[in-house]
Amino acid sequence: MDERVRDHAEVLVDWSARIDSGDHVVVRVAEGAHDLAVAVAEKLGERGATVATSYASDEVSRAYLRAHDGDFETPAHELALYEHADAVLSLGGGRNTFATADVDGDTRQASAKAVAPVREARLATDWVSTVHPTRSLAQQAGMSYEAYRDFVYDAVLRDWEMLAEEMQQLKQLLDAGSQVRLVTENTDLTMSIESRTAVNSAASVAYDSHNLPSGEVFTAPYATEGTVHFDVPMTISGSRIRDVTLRFEDGEVVEHAAAVGEEVIGDVLDTDEGARRLGELGIGMNRGIDRVTDNVLFDEKLGDTVHLAVGRAYDACLPEGESGNDSAVHVDLITDVSENSRLEVDGEVIQRNGRFRWEEGFDADESA
Amino acid sequence: MDERVRDHAEVLVDWSARIDSGDHVVVRVAEGAHDLAVAVAEKLGERGATVATSYASDEVSRAYLRAHDGDFETPAHELALYEHADAVLSLGGGRNTFATADVDGDTRQASAKAVAPVREARLATDWVSTVHPTRSLAQQAGMSYEAYRDFVYDAVLRDWEMLAEEMQQLKQLLDAGSQVRLVTENTDLTMSIESRTAVNSAASVAYDSHNLPSGEVFTAPYATEGTVHFDVPMTISGSRIRDVTLRFEDGEVVEHAAAVGEEVIGDVLDTDEGARRLGELGIGMNRGIDRVTDNVLFDEKLGDTVHLAVGRAYDACLPEGESGNDSAVHVDLITDVSENSRLEVDGEVIQRNGRFRWEEGFDADESA
Repeated sequence: MDERVRDHAEVLVDWSARIDSGDHVVVRVAEGAHDLAVAVAEKLGERGATVATSYASDEVSRAYLRAHDGDFETPAHELALYEHADAVLSLGGGRNTFATADVDGDTRQASAKAVAPVREARLATDWVSTVHPTRSLAQQAGMSYEAYRDFVYDAVLRDWEMLAEEMQQLKQLLDAGSQVRLVTENTDLTMSIESRTAVNSAASVAYDSHNLPSGEVFTAPYATEGTVHFDVPMTISGSRIRDVTLRFEDGEVVEHAAAVGEEVIGDVLDTDEGARRLGELGIGMNRGIDRVTDNVLFDEKLGDTVHLAVGRAYDACLPEGESGNDSAVHVDLITDVSENSRLEVDGEVIQRNGRFRWEEGFDADESA
Repeated sequence: MDERVRDHAEVLVDWSARIDSGDHVVVRVAEGAHDLAVAVAEKLGERGATVATSYASDEVSRAYLRAHDGDFETPAHELALYEHADAVLSLGGGRNTFATADVDGDTRQASAKAVAPVREARLATDWVSTVHPTRSLAQQAGMSYEAYRDFVYDAVLRDWEMLAEEMQQLKQLLDAGSQVRLVTENTDLTMSIESRTAVNSAASVAYDSHNLPSGEVFTAPYATEGTVHFDVPMTISGSRIRDVTLRFEDGEVVEHAAAVGEEVIGDVLDTDEGARRLGELGIGMNRGIDRVTDNVLFDEKLGDTVHLAVGRAYDACLPEGESGNDSAVHVDLITDVSENSRLEVDGEVIQRNGRFRWEEGFDADESA
C-alpha cells in the first residue's frame, strides 16, 4: 500500500474528525475507496473507536432508485445507525462519475426527501468527507492515475495547523468587516457580511470544517449588488458549465448568462426563492491544489480563487439561532483571481492578484 | 451482467427472505459481491423495501482488529441499525479466503464477545446468507472461475418449492422418530431425536432456513453413542482437516483422531463443555451441488452426504422454551453416504447408499 494512503487516513481520523476512544464511527466506503477504508480501519482500531461500515456504491443506488416506484419511505434502520453515531467518515472515490446519470430528477428528489432525516442525523455528527484517488476521478480531471494520486496527496497531506493559522488572519478581517467588494476584469460585486461569522475551514471538525482537503475561508454574504463572472469551468449535475455571468440587484440574481450550460444555470436559479441569492462567499487558500480537476471538493479550495454559491447558507456563519438563506440547492461557482483582481473589505484591499496583504509581493495600491 | 446474477437476487429477495414493501433491509456486501449487490438493490427497489448497506470486507476487519488493543466495546450504532432492521441479506464472496488468517485468536474472541449483541440482533431478523461466486472461492474449490459460477448457480437456482416438498417427507420421518442410527464402512452411531423437531431447510425464512443455497434437513440429536468417520475433507479456521473419527460415550466425544488436523479438532473439542456434544445432525439433499468445494455453505447441503456438528444446537429444533446444547462453537463435519451406508430411524432404513425410501433404486433390505 502507498504509504500516503496511511498518512491520509491518519489526517482524516486525527486532525479532521478528532476521533477518541469509544467513539462510534460510521465509515462510508465508495466502490473505489477500499484501500483507504483499510487504512482508516487500522487508525480507528488504534484509537479504540468502534466501526460500522456502509457500502456507498453509486451503482447500487442507481439500481435501487431506477427499480423503485417513487413512493419512498424513510429507512428507519439507517436513521437509527446515524442517530447513534458520533462521527461519519465518507470515503469517496467511485469508478464512474456518471454512474447515476440515468436516474431521473423526480426520482432523485423523491428519494432525497425520504432520506432527509437520515441526512440530518448524519450532519449532526462530526462528519468529514474525503476522496480516495481513483482512475475515474483521474479521468474526470483529465490526468494520468499516477499524477492524480500525487495531486490528491499534495492537497490532503498538508501542515493543516500552519494553514489554519494563516487562514485565521483572513477570518479576522472578514469577521471585523461589514462589506466585501470583489473586482476582476469582468466582475464588480459588493456583498454585506455585517454580523456574519467566517469559518476558518481547516479540514477539521474543530474548525466547523467537514472536507478533507479543505483550505478556504467562507462566510454567508447578503445584499449582493453588481456583476460577477466565473471563469473556472465545471460540471454541475452531469452538465458542463463555462463562463457564467450573474448580475445581482437587491441581493437577487436578475440576469444570467453562460458560454456553455446557460440552461443548467437557469434551472438551478429556478429551483426555489433562495436559489437566486448567495449562500456562500469562499476564498480558496490551499496552495497544495495547483489546478482545476472538475471536482468541487478540490476546485473551491484552490489557491488564488474565489467562489460564490447560490442557495443554502451554512449555519456556522450566522448569528446564534438565526437562519440564513434557505434553499434546496447549494451550487458553487468559481473565479480565478490570480491576475487583474482585488478583494476589498470596507474599502481596504486585502488580496490583490491572489496575494494576501500578509504575503510577500502584496501591493495595496497597484491598480487592478 | 450474467442474467443468473439477477435470478440469484430474485430467489434471495422473494423466496429466501420474503421481502415485502416497507421492510427495512440491511444488505451486507463482501469485497467481491458488488454485482450481486447491484442486482439485489434492483429487486429491493422493485419490492418497495428500504435499504441500508454494510461493507463486509475481511481486509477492513483485519486492519481494525490487528490495530486494536483488544479492549473492545459494543458498537452501539451498529446495534441500533440491526435492531431497527426487518431483514439482513449477507452477500458473501471475498477476494481471499485467508484475508484474516493473521488475526490472533484472542483478539477474534474478544471482538466477538463485544459484538455479540449485534450478532443477536441480526439473528433476530429475517436474515439470509448467500455468496456471490468470486475467483477466490473458485480457487478455494480448486475450480476455474467459469466452472465455479456454473456450480454456484446450479446450487442456488433450483425449484425450491419442489425440493421443500421432497424434504418434507424426511422431516416427517425424523419428527415421528425417536432414534437415528448411521452406519457406513467405518461408522456405527446412534443418536436420540425424541421430542426434537427437524428443520426442512429449504433456503427460506418461511422454513426457518437462512442459507442460500440450502437443501438439507437437520435436527438436534443427543445421547450419542458409537463411532463416526468423516471422509469429506475441509478447512476449519484456516487449517486442513481430513478423515476425522470421533467416538461418543454418553453423548460426549471421548476419543478423536484425524489423518490431517487432529490438533485442530482437539482444540475445537476443548473449547467448552458443549463442544464435545453434538448440536446438529444434517442430511444433505441438494443434488444441484455435485462436488465438494471446501465451503461449508455448499458442502453440508451436498446430496448423498450426512453431517454432524459438534457444539451449539439451533433453537428451531428444540421444544418451545427449551434450550439445547450450548457452545461457542458449531463445527460441521461431513461424511459421504453414497456407498455402503444406511440411515435408520427407529430400526427402519430410510436411506441406503444415498437413496431415500421414496426414491427409485431404494432397497430397504440390501445389506450395507
